[in-house]
Amino acid sequence: MQWVKVLGGVVGAAALLGLGIIVGHFAIPKGADSPAPSASASQDLDLKILETVIEQLDANRIRENLRELSKEPHLATTPRDEALVQLLLQRWQDPESGLDSARTTEYEVLLSFPSGEQPNRVAVVNSTGAILFSCRHSEENLTGEQGGPNVVPPYAAYAPPGTPQGPLVYANQGSEEDFKELQNKGVKLQDSIVLTRYGGVGRGAKAVNAAKYGVAGVLVYTDPKDINDGKSLPNETFPHSWCLPPSGVERGSYFEYFGDPLTPYLPAMPSSFRLNSDNASGFPPIPIQPIGFEDAQVLLCQVNVSVHNRLELRNSSNVLGIIRGAVEPDRYVLYGNHRDSWVHGAVDPSTGTAVLLELSRVLGTLLKKGTWRPRRSIVFASWGAEEFGLIGSTEFTEEFFSKLQERAVAYINVDISVFANATLRVQGTPPIQSVVFSAAKQISAPGSSGLSIYDNWIRYYNRSSSVYGLVPSVGTLGAGSDYAPFIHFLGISSMDIAYTYDRSKTSARIYPTYHTAFDTFDYVDKFLDPGFSSHQAVARTAGSVLLRLSDSLFLPLNVSDYSETLRSFLQAAEDLRVLLEQHGISLGPLVTAVERFEGAATAFNQRIATLREGTPDPLQVRMINDQLMLLERTFLNSQAFPEERYYSHVLWAPRTGSVATFPGLSNAYSQAKNTGHEPAAWAEVQRQLSIVVAALEGAAATLRPVADL
Amino acid sequence: MQWVKVLGGVVGAAALLGLGIIVGHFAIPKGADSPAPSASASQDLDLKILETVIEQLDANRIRENLRELSKEPHLATTPRDEALVQLLLQRWQDPESGLDSARTTEYEVLLSFPSGEQPNRVAVVNSTGAILFSCRHSEENLTGEQGGPNVVPPYAAYAPPGTPQGPLVYANQGSEEDFKELQNKGVKLQDSIVLTRYGGVGRGAKAVNAAKYGVAGVLVYTDPKDINDGKSLPNETFPHSWCLPPSGVERGSYFEYFGDPLTPYLPAMPSSFRLNSDNASGFPPIPIQPIGFEDAQVLLCQVNVSVHNRLELRNSSNVLGIIRGAVEPDRYVLYGNHRDSWVHGAVDPSTGTAVLLELSRVLGTLLKKGTWRPRRSIVFASWGAEEFGLIGSTEFTEEFFSKLQERAVAYINVDISVFANATLRVQGTPPIQSVVFSAAKQISAPGSSGLSIYDNWIRYYNRSSSVYGLVPSVGTLGAGSDYAPFIHFLGISSMDIAYTYDRSKTSARIYPTYHTAFDTFDYVDKFLDPGFSSHQAVARTAGSVLLRLSDSLFLPLNVSDYSETLRSFLQAAEDLRVLLEQHGISLGPLVTAVERFEGAATAFNQRIATLREGTPDPLQVRMINDQLMLLERTFLNSQAFPEERYYSHVLWAPRTGSVATFPGLSNAYSQAKNTGHEPAAWAEVQRQLSIVVAALEGAAATLRPVADL
Repeated sequence: MQWVKVLGGVVGAAALLGLGIIVGHFAIPKGADSPAPSASASQDLDLKILETVIEQLDANRIRENLRELSKEPHLATTPRDEALVQLLLQRWQDPESGLDSARTTEYEVLLSFPSGEQPNRVAVVNSTGAILFSCRHSEENLTGEQGGPNVVPPYAAYAPPGTPQGPLVYANQGSEEDFKELQNKGVKLQDSIVLTRYGGVGRGAKAVNAAKYGVAGVLVYTDPKDINDGKSLPNETFPHSWCLPPSGVERGSYFEYFGDPLTPYLPAMPSSFRLNSDNASGFPPIPIQPIGFEDAQVLLCQVNVSVHNRLELRNSSNVLGIIRGAVEPDRYVLYGNHRDSWVHGAVDPSTGTAVLLELSRVLGTLLKKGTWRPRRSIVFASWGAEEFGLIGSTEFTEEFFSKLQERAVAYINVDISVFANATLRVQGTPPIQSVVFSAAKQISAPGSSGLSIYDNWIRYYNRSSSVYGLVPSVGTLGAGSDYAPFIHFLGISSMDIAYTYDRSKTSARIYPTYHTAFDTFDYVDKFLDPGFSSHQAVARTAGSVLLRLSDSLFLPLNVSDYSETLRSFLQAAEDLRVLLEQHGISLGPLVTAVERFEGAATAFNQRIATLREGTPDPLQVRMINDQLMLLERTFLNSQAFPEERYYSHVLWAPRTGSVATFPGLSNAYSQAKNTGHEPAAWAEVQRQLSIVVAALEGAAATLRPVADL
Repeated sequence: MQWVKVLGGVVGAAALLGLGIIVGHFAIPKGADSPAPSASASQDLDLKILETVIEQLDANRIRENLRELSKEPHLATTPRDEALVQLLLQRWQDPESGLDSARTTEYEVLLSFPSGEQPNRVAVVNSTGAILFSCRHSEENLTGEQGGPNVVPPYAAYAPPGTPQGPLVYANQGSEEDFKELQNKGVKLQDSIVLTRYGGVGRGAKAVNAAKYGVAGVLVYTDPKDINDGKSLPNETFPHSWCLPPSGVERGSYFEYFGDPLTPYLPAMPSSFRLNSDNASGFPPIPIQPIGFEDAQVLLCQVNVSVHNRLELRNSSNVLGIIRGAVEPDRYVLYGNHRDSWVHGAVDPSTGTAVLLELSRVLGTLLKKGTWRPRRSIVFASWGAEEFGLIGSTEFTEEFFSKLQERAVAYINVDISVFANATLRVQGTPPIQSVVFSAAKQISAPGSSGLSIYDNWIRYYNRSSSVYGLVPSVGTLGAGSDYAPFIHFLGISSMDIAYTYDRSKTSARIYPTYHTAFDTFDYVDKFLDPGFSSHQAVARTAGSVLLRLSDSLFLPLNVSDYSETLRSFLQAAEDLRVLLEQHGISLGPLVTAVERFEGAATAFNQRIATLREGTPDPLQVRMINDQLMLLERTFLNSQAFPEERYYSHVLWAPRTGSVATFPGLSNAYSQAKNTGHEPAAWAEVQRQLSIVVAALEGAAATLRPVADL
């Protein structure tokens, strides 16, 4: 059965539009034990300790962690989520393998749940309103883990309640273009129910786009072509393969922003000011409900959708564990992942938490034995309510804004640690490339290839660097997991580390059981990573990166690696030059600013090299490290994107324009071109250009010798 | 002649309204010479060096500096202003007494000047339009210094051009209340010209307020009661006394914000994005023109005002000079003043620049001799175009935002160094109180009292501290001089230092020739500070503060002194409690936050005391100093006051509400009370309260042991 054809034939109009990919995923790591010798101020990374740590990271312990973590569904703020808070506290306070201290921080946040009494319903009705067919209320209980009161029924978190009814229209991915095309073809959208498939645009965007055309309600299904490489029959899907069963439904948050919806920019303390939920923005404007492809294929004619979701204020906890730095306790290397899942969440996020716990165990054990204490402080974090929109991590950055802005060296995120077994995949800002490469070169890749993780990686994802030649390609950070508030709101160098697919073998948008009740321990154990060697590889890579960041005398961040990004953005901007100049806008200052950054970064690296040759005193090292740490902050501008909540990084804000240049410039340029060349729109292009130039000049100034004028 | 009565009788309505004081003033310091011994990382302030510096600060050299600086008018960006740029560069590059390096930074900024061809005019006309009387176009040339092409005629900078005509109405200080009262009394304001006196509200606010009532044009005069303790006759005013002559006119900027009007939040580089001046906000909405009291008293009936001011883009320079720190070159103690004046500007700003040059000479000489080099870097700055709205300093903070935010220890402003001879007067944030007190106790007050500056000060301005008993009172920082962008935009601990009045002897709003052509060298030499001993006292005090900040092992900032401020704000907030609680708003979290700050600050000071007893290593000291330096930053919140350009300090933003508590809370509370208790207005009260609580909790977190969770 060809899925797209069926749908295309029965329902509708735009089924042949492009196949898109959205990734909104998430994961944890594992633990260590006792106080250690007071390191000297000029002590560098101890390679023996590093080897010991890598050696001791145990695949089987990760597997046991995962089994425990994913034993029960642990939706944010439910009793099992709270039980895992206690589990983390217990591990991090263990006398043999715990950290220096651990505690929780609790926030009162607005979550959204299906009603306990009135299940959400999707039904086909005839002209008298009689029900001809009803979609499933829950997934099929294939392994005994899909039933029970703790499996939250499929729903779209933050979708408003409502019971719209109308003719069904297939709207592809629900993008702006999809609706425009339907309208152009004369398809009536007013008062219809549209059926969309996951992918292409964000979840909430489908409802936002639909509402503009008067659509009454939206359904979202997972297309087998997008998730299962086309497989859709029961005997070729889970539990017979890693593929999503016909009844599987992807849950998810449909909130447009991140953080607690009622307390933007403020920590969600019980006493904090809260927006009235009627005034809060970012919720889907119309009812929306996800369904499985089993149901999607039989929908037709008049459809009735009943959504009974409710907003609820809930207490959600983060768990924080710290290892105090021996030399520079006021410098923090953060390592985190979320804890909450949609159902059992074995892959998302427990593969990450299992790694987190193993890593904290190994480090904690060395600590408690007195073998080791890091130069800088290490902060482990287990975030709450990530699935609802990175809520725990965002509230944390709001509560400790100043402290983090002043002291955080880097943030390492390991959410889903294993998507698949093929290769390492890293997203991050350019300065973290070098430390990730160093770590990846040192560790063997899983399997029998005999290659290092680095050499294996380069086979799957690579690019030609003007500086280094062929290297693995490090991706950019969107807002798919808890790194988002760290990089976009606080300007902290961040990264996300995982093992992932061989793209020649699958085009799945993401691992098939993502956010469904089929994401269970056995799924990981049988299909994703039998033997847990990929988990171990991620633990070792992330652990090595963590130790290098916490223990190296000079921070292993290479600021010069930003130059390649800036050059590529600049090169893309050259395509805009003609039209910009027609509007009196010169790229000259941008060219100069990029050159100045490059010059300052190169000279800065030379000064570090010279210092390394001598015996730099501790304050000299500290000053250099402050420049390294704070470079990322210089790219923030709180005035740059007033409409984009939290986004202030002028290089990594969301880019909606088609030109792969600085996002503010790209977006303003697209806007100016699309709005008939209004002067105000071109003024905004110039403003965005000036913001980038000021940021780059400020970044260059930060890297110059500190007493230069 | 009783001035107020004359005016009250002849012109109008509201002459008996309260007498207000506005101060919008401004001032510089002086120089030092050669490279010095490499200090050890644990070296503390050298008291012998400090004594040497204080000893060498020479009153006569300050006097000679002042003579040179105020020899010619040096309005911003004019040739004489540029000549002073060269003078400063020359001094700071002198081989014997210069600094390590010096350079200029230039910005292209929007200034406002009277037309060269069409003088602004204020005339009384009869019903046929015939001129019965014309106000002076310039001040009377009493000393030979009030004539010539370089004396800019009196005008209101940034007032729009226009030639309104209408009946004259006296509107007191032109406050909102003044206009309301006139309207209540049935005085017709529509299409009138109002005559206002300086004081009470800001300059531009008079035009903003007037325009709301349909007023066509505004005149502003200086009332002898406000400025001359009532004296108004030629033989009792300058050059016979320090009083303002009848023809004297206060010039000034009527721009509502500060910084270059066309490039808010961006450095005014030639290539920077600029608002169209038609879209720029903050300019007076209607023509406005200042006049002397000589003219003000004869105005009546129909008045015609012709304003021909023009906006011009000009290049304005800052001059920066640096002494590289021996141990922590990446920590900056800034000391600055503006250079530009309205006319000769002997008092404003050259009394400050004369001190700046003497201080930089003494320090430069020690440097060039090899006797001394500070622990931290010292940055001397001569700002351009301050009179037009703190433009040079603001653009500087925009250009070097990140660098300054990360590295600036404190900013010392000495604008007008001597208003009068009676006493020291300091404005600043609480943590600078202790270092100023230490400096003031060490230096003898001018005159024969035998008292220290501190003991003399306490006789004039004092308060009862709950912690220290009777102490001199340190004032708060508004936006009257170049410290404004440092404290409000960047959150850098700042202060303004001067010698000032005995308030039992004069109630002058400010020294009488302020912003007039009578502010000349002889005026200072004869009336303000014969012998220049007050100048010397300010040089010594500011010099001692500078050296203590640059050379002390532990930064001499006492964060605990913020507790008294917070307590007083909290106490004032208690008056709001009943009404707040009626609207469901609790002060509980604020009380807790203040207590937590107090506790954290006290414990922090104890840790410093303990460290001082031992032999702390350089990194321990650095970590403590980072906490001291960055505390002030934790009070910034860029979301707090979206309507208030640059203001982001939640404790020192402008307070328009009448309750002396946290400004955001006070303002929102007033607004809620005045707007008939709308729910949205009370929501804003709660939002502002949450912002303060989050800031105080963040501040407390920053002071806690750095590896505490």
